[in-house]
Amino acid sequence: MTATAEATASNLDPEILRAERMFTEMRAQTEDPPGVTRPSFGEGEHAAHALAAEWARSLGLEITHDYAGNQYMTLPGRDRDAPRIMIGSHMDSVPHGGNYDGAAGVVMGLAALDRLRRLDRVPEQDITVMAIRAEEACWFSTHYAGSRMAFGLLPAAEYDACVRVDTGRSLTAHIKEAGFEPEPLKAGKAWLDPKKIRCYLEPHIEQGPALIGAGLPVGVVTGIRGNLRYKHCQVTGVYGHAGAVPRDHRRDAVFAAAEFAGVLERHWLDREAAGKDFVCTVGEFWTDPTQHTMTKISGDVRFTMDIRSEDNAVLLDTDAYLRREAARIGAARGVTIDLGAFTNAEPALMDPALRAILREKADALGIPYMEMASGAGHDCATFANLGVPSAMIFVRNDKSSHNPEEAMEITDFGEAARLLGALLDALG
Amino acid sequence: MTATAEATASNLDPEILRAERMFTEMRAQTEDPPGVTRPSFGEGEHAAHALAAEWARSLGLEITHDYAGNQYMTLPGRDRDAPRIMIGSHMDSVPHGGNYDGAAGVVMGLAALDRLRRLDRVPEQDITVMAIRAEEACWFSTHYAGSRMAFGLLPAAEYDACVRVDTGRSLTAHIKEAGFEPEPLKAGKAWLDPKKIRCYLEPHIEQGPALIGAGLPVGVVTGIRGNLRYKHCQVTGVYGHAGAVPRDHRRDAVFAAAEFAGVLERHWLDREAAGKDFVCTVGEFWTDPTQHTMTKISGDVRFTMDIRSEDNAVLLDTDAYLRREAARIGAARGVTIDLGAFTNAEPALMDPALRAILREKADALGIPYMEMASGAGHDCATFANLGVPSAMIFVRNDKSSHNPEEAMEITDFGEAARLLGALLDALG
Repeated sequence: MTATAEATASNLDPEILRAERMFTEMRAQTEDPPGVTRPSFGEGEHAAHALAAEWARSLGLEITHDYAGNQYMTLPGRDRDAPRIMIGSHMDSVPHGGNYDGAAGVVMGLAALDRLRRLDRVPEQDITVMAIRAEEACWFSTHYAGSRMAFGLLPAAEYDACVRVDTGRSLTAHIKEAGFEPEPLKAGKAWLDPKKIRCYLEPHIEQGPALIGAGLPVGVVTGIRGNLRYKHCQVTGVYGHAGAVPRDHRRDAVFAAAEFAGVLERHWLDREAAGKDFVCTVGEFWTDPTQHTMTKISGDVRFTMDIRSEDNAVLLDTDAYLRREAARIGAARGVTIDLGAFTNAEPALMDPALRAILREKADALGIPYMEMASGAGHDCATFANLGVPSAMIFVRNDKSSHNPEEAMEITDFGEAARLLGALLDALG
Repeated sequence: MTATAEATASNLDPEILRAERMFTEMRAQTEDPPGVTRPSFGEGEHAAHALAAEWARSLGLEITHDYAGNQYMTLPGRDRDAPRIMIGSHMDSVPHGGNYDGAAGVVMGLAALDRLRRLDRVPEQDITVMAIRAEEACWFSTHYAGSRMAFGLLPAAEYDACVRVDTGRSLTAHIKEAGFEPEPLKAGKAWLDPKKIRCYLEPHIEQGPALIGAGLPVGVVTGIRGNLRYKHCQVTGVYGHAGAVPRDHRRDAVFAAAEFAGVLERHWLDREAAGKDFVCTVGEFWTDPTQHTMTKISGDVRFTMDIRSEDNAVLLDTDAYLRREAARIGAARGVTIDLGAFTNAEPALMDPALRAILREKADALGIPYMEMASGAGHDCATFANLGVPSAMIFVRNDKSSHNPEEAMEITDFGEAARLLGALLDALG
């Protein structure tokens, strides 16, 4: 900590200092250099949930879990039957990710309830902090699993079909092993009822460079991009000798996959030129390490695609276009390009009334902010698409997220928490 | 074996049947499904050398080894001081490769000496079968290591700098471990003298589909392509969140590497259009498996390049072009594309007089053949480029080589061995 940061930190409210200690402890318990690893339904995620529960217990909050192991930490309100306010985010991370993506939202929710306890305030209705399971799609290849399970919305087939990338074992097996109940989930049984939720608030670090670039500590989110995700794309050609096979006899999987990646990137430029919101990423791209070598034409390339837009029609059109292009390139090169199955998380809009309160309170408190779309997907989209009024507060964060370099300043976290507190005070 | 093949096999000379048994035994001893693995200076290569020595001993051949462990099996001739005839090839294989690439040449050499013993013929000069070490560049990232060491031509620095891909240990360490002598090699000491070799003959399976396509059992080689090899190309970008980082902030290593691969492939098409001999392969292409995931922009791609031509000027021009393009693409995308070091094996021409004898004998024996260039590199290039009159006989082989599907028929091997025998008879 620099001298300046120390001076600032000494002005922080006690719950923000406790939040900082929780971040330190959580990093220590889930370290996996470089960065931290908290697999969905794995040891690191459990550890984060346990740290949240420890804080909740010290505040005397009610702690419950649903069938999927999502953890609810509730400050009782005056009217216990009134639709409650929820504050939530996930606590899992990508492999070798950062300490704040997801977890910061849960920690900020706890800090907000800690503040209410400190000020001895009892809200009108219950306020529940929800620590959500399994948001990072890299583990089970399905989006928003935790929040969708809370509403009984994850398709029954996915519980056995989705296997964790590192263990090869199913979601069913992992839920059971963690002590929770896959059977009611498969039967579509909901734990949460959208009608009994007054609003859902998700604080989250910004995962792009916009707030850093603008020099602002806080962002008020307008909407969340939807996505298409392809976990198992495969180009199948024929292995062969690097020197002796003439070009017209080759079925080279690498050049075919490289051409396909180029087509995807040109499609992105075309979408931009047409004024459409669009980003795409090929995060994994690999020849088979047990077969490949410098002097052998590769007959096998695997890759992934993650494609996002605020407009679901753009996403579905893109899927159709890419399948046509995969067939065209495959036919021209004598290989097959199989894009495999995809998942589609729909875009979601944030609640205008909640956004208006956030803007007003930020102005009143003198917290510099901007309104912005969320490029990343969040559990908040599950709530918003079920009709629950939803809002997201972004915290400035350097070096993007999903990587070990992720860097949020505790003072920025404190500003966002002040704004969240003001919103809760306004809601009563 | 099919009924037809059995009927044909029964007509095979005894040394060809023994060759077939040696192939079976060699496959059994070096199996590593799929295919066989015989690493340079590794267990599988040692096993193949031991099987060759066993056959040589049974024929009463003189067996010696040079500083590098190349194995010489000599049938004494009438004039022991006359420049000798050498027949050779390598006995290592790529990982999960086929049983015949390299080894078939040594086995055919032994079969040829076995035939001379059977016919009780004593040649004019010594005939030596050379089982060469370390030809497959995938292991130590240097070309023709075994034959260059035999002539004291491998640069001193490479003995410690070249490390085996699977063990991480140096060529020096592996030579020593195998019981041979790196010190005289580093001092540039030659075991073979080009002036004392009358000619070098290398039988080898064809590694492309030309003989299969033409329906011919045998090829007479005109020349050997040279190559450029890049074992450690690396694209370094910045890891980031797949959804939240806008396009102009991305430093995506995958899209950069894919564009570079496209540039390489277009350069190939341009060389072809200009009438130049050229092939290229990106055999390995991979994001970092310990860091990559579907939802993360990749900041690191590694790849290899293997580029071949009959014209070394084309190769050297290509290197310069690719380095310019790497710099251009890197600058445009905010990444670095580092092609790393390369090795350059020069092209080599086969001896016109030997080729003429091979053509004449094939015609006389009624063996269908064609003349063809060798797309793959061979130890034969080392001998030819030192002025030793050299020739190669190709054996028809299905499914290319450097892969487990490699398939040579023993009857085709027998035809090539008949041609080799006729050449030896003609040389006296």
